[in-house]
Amino acid sequence: MSTTRELGERTQGMVDALAAISAEPDRLVRLFLTPEHRRAADLVGEWMRAAGLTVRMDAAGTMRGLRPAPGEDAPAGKKLLIGSHIDTVIDAGRYDGPLGVIAGIVALEEIRARGIVLPFGVEILAFGDEEGVRFPKTLSSSSTVAGILDPSMLDMVDADGISFRDALLAFGGDPEALAAEACRPRDVVGYVELHIEQGPVLEQAGEPLGVVTAIASQGRYRLTVKGEAGHAGTVPMAIRHDALAAAAEVVALIEEIARKGARHSLVATVGEMRVLPGASNVIPGEVHLSLDVRAADDDARIGAAADIRQGLAAIGARRGVVVTMETVHEKPVATCAPWLREAIAAAIAETTGARPRELMSGAGHDGQAMVKLTGIGMIFVRCHAGISHNPLEFVTIDDLGLAVEALIQTILEIARERAG
Amino acid sequence: MSTTRELGERTQGMVDALAAISAEPDRLVRLFLTPEHRRAADLVGEWMRAAGLTVRMDAAGTMRGLRPAPGEDAPAGKKLLIGSHIDTVIDAGRYDGPLGVIAGIVALEEIRARGIVLPFGVEILAFGDEEGVRFPKTLSSSSTVAGILDPSMLDMVDADGISFRDALLAFGGDPEALAAEACRPRDVVGYVELHIEQGPVLEQAGEPLGVVTAIASQGRYRLTVKGEAGHAGTVPMAIRHDALAAAAEVVALIEEIARKGARHSLVATVGEMRVLPGASNVIPGEVHLSLDVRAADDDARIGAAADIRQGLAAIGARRGVVVTMETVHEKPVATCAPWLREAIAAAIAETTGARPRELMSGAGHDGQAMVKLTGIGMIFVRCHAGISHNPLEFVTIDDLGLAVEALIQTILEIARERAG
Repeated sequence: MSTTRELGERTQGMVDALAAISAEPDRLVRLFLTPEHRRAADLVGEWMRAAGLTVRMDAAGTMRGLRPAPGEDAPAGKKLLIGSHIDTVIDAGRYDGPLGVIAGIVALEEIRARGIVLPFGVEILAFGDEEGVRFPKTLSSSSTVAGILDPSMLDMVDADGISFRDALLAFGGDPEALAAEACRPRDVVGYVELHIEQGPVLEQAGEPLGVVTAIASQGRYRLTVKGEAGHAGTVPMAIRHDALAAAAEVVALIEEIARKGARHSLVATVGEMRVLPGASNVIPGEVHLSLDVRAADDDARIGAAADIRQGLAAIGARRGVVVTMETVHEKPVATCAPWLREAIAAAIAETTGARPRELMSGAGHDGQAMVKLTGIGMIFVRCHAGISHNPLEFVTIDDLGLAVEALIQTILEIARERAG
Repeated sequence: MSTTRELGERTQGMVDALAAISAEPDRLVRLFLTPEHRRAADLVGEWMRAAGLTVRMDAAGTMRGLRPAPGEDAPAGKKLLIGSHIDTVIDAGRYDGPLGVIAGIVALEEIRARGIVLPFGVEILAFGDEEGVRFPKTLSSSSTVAGILDPSMLDMVDADGISFRDALLAFGGDPEALAAEACRPRDVVGYVELHIEQGPVLEQAGEPLGVVTAIASQGRYRLTVKGEAGHAGTVPMAIRHDALAAAAEVVALIEEIARKGARHSLVATVGEMRVLPGASNVIPGEVHLSLDVRAADDDARIGAAADIRQGLAAIGARRGVVVTMETVHEKPVATCAPWLREAIAAAIAETTGARPRELMSGAGHDGQAMVKLTGIGMIFVRCHAGISHNPLEFVTIDDLGLAVEALIQTILEIARERAG
């Protein structure tokens, strides 16, 4: 039986080994269905085999390692799914994705070492398509397992004009066999994913682990303010229709509405703003803004978007400018299953001695597809300064150890629940 | 004696003739010391000669036409200066600048036709360097007449690396003789310029002409807001240091302070804003803004800049961001001489039947240099929708006629004043 520190060191070694597999020598780049993705999947497959798992790559390129259910003790064929992704963004950190796969493997090694018998099978899933960098749509790996893959995704092409279908064939996958890879809901206990937080909440709270309530409901919008350009020196303030002054009020409104929604983990962000014509001596005539709204439930997000839309109309009317708001896309919330939230909370309390904080995942995850198949649960691990998608992404070895131990305890909690 | 309509038609014809002289066939481009500037100056010189003026091009390239003082009736050598500029911006309108020169010539033609004897000389000045497009600094023509030219300006180079000195030589000017061109204050009655408003105030008020109180005091500043970038989904509102949310508050503050200064014609404009890193899913970490502040007096402009600076510090402290404000340049106000304001107001009342509105010139003019030599006065002419620096610049023929008549009446008012 390993100490928490030993579990952390083992995990760190594997994280580092996977981070060495990249398309480029000086930074981590591992896109979906590339040769480096394949090399990473093969290394994960070796680790799975060494942990005693039955390993195969599925038709969508997901490396899957199964610890079968132990004969008659288990409900026939039922299995707990544990997964995350091994693709990365460009110039990535080493924890986002790989940690969830590696923690699953190390947890199963340790459960075997501790001689624990589980009442269900466990399958580790190393998805390959979460970051969405190569193709315009994403989550094809987990959507295949969940049985919700849209076949038209096969026709997507990357920047080089290569289709998803051809890339999958070249990788060793099978575009024709995707439907057959879907799990049946009755064969699955649930889906658990361990991931770095990618935000600053746990670090600021001084807590190593948190339990996720939901993967955010998200809406992305494009806003345009049309006013009247003019000479900065010759148009009196009282008769201006300054598009930027109006846009500033829009930004303030958005912030105010978002702040009122803390109970629903509501966040709203204007990340882009383009001011036209954009000269120091010309009153802005037109401003374009992006808007990103996320919340732990759909109603809160939809309500906030409606409040913003209403506020825009009032600003436009008062200032004599035209403000429009166009929806780019909206994604519903993926709520974590209450029984898994409870199991994870109990497991973290067992590991750290304290009930963990609950938090929303503002970022997207494979759970958004898996929730269509089964109940999902997520464990968040503290990361330095909330930095992610960046080589500075960092988790301490102690926190890695606590994370793996919490995952082990989560599996045991689920086992107790299912046995009871 | 011409009717107002006839004065307008004559002026329009000359405006159109000058607008045909351009570096490009499809748009009006006439930069300082170019061949097209020379052709325009020569045409102006012909008109001046035809109006009975004594014509010469001075060492700085300014075409000057003098109607001498009539012998013993006049204070020895005293002359009234009337001028504007014949250089243009790129893709210019046809009235900005040329109108003031042409109106001066037509006014002197008409004064001669009416058989009026003036108690002073009148010199029409067709300056060539007001728009500041070719070289980094401007107003060299009027600065030469005012005797305030900084000799280091001769070393300025244009985008092609040609120095002001060499361009002036090629044009037919004389860099060594600039100092000798300065007028002596005691020889000058005053300086009067007629110009399109370049703003919407007169059109909105339904008045053809206005009297200028001052050429604005102007300050240009660069503002920077430094906050903390972060993931748009994972950083709760309560712990954000969003540079754009802070910048929005800065824009609102600037607008509020400017609105309070209406009594001093205070205007403040944020015309440029750059948001970094500028991605829809990233909280902005840094924002750069331009700020342009103008007012009819220096204290109002300096006070507003100080109020803004103080407000920035408060916003920064409250939001945990750093806001800095750097001065790019500051230009003092050029106040119009009260006696010339009064003469112009009386002249406009004589012409239109109503006391005119007083307004600030937010744009810069040659008067900013001439004020160092003598009292200045400006007549503003209504232009369509306040549009300027654009081919859509437009003044009606009726307004052109009223403008020339008001300039004639201004000269007569000054004559009465000087005689009395």
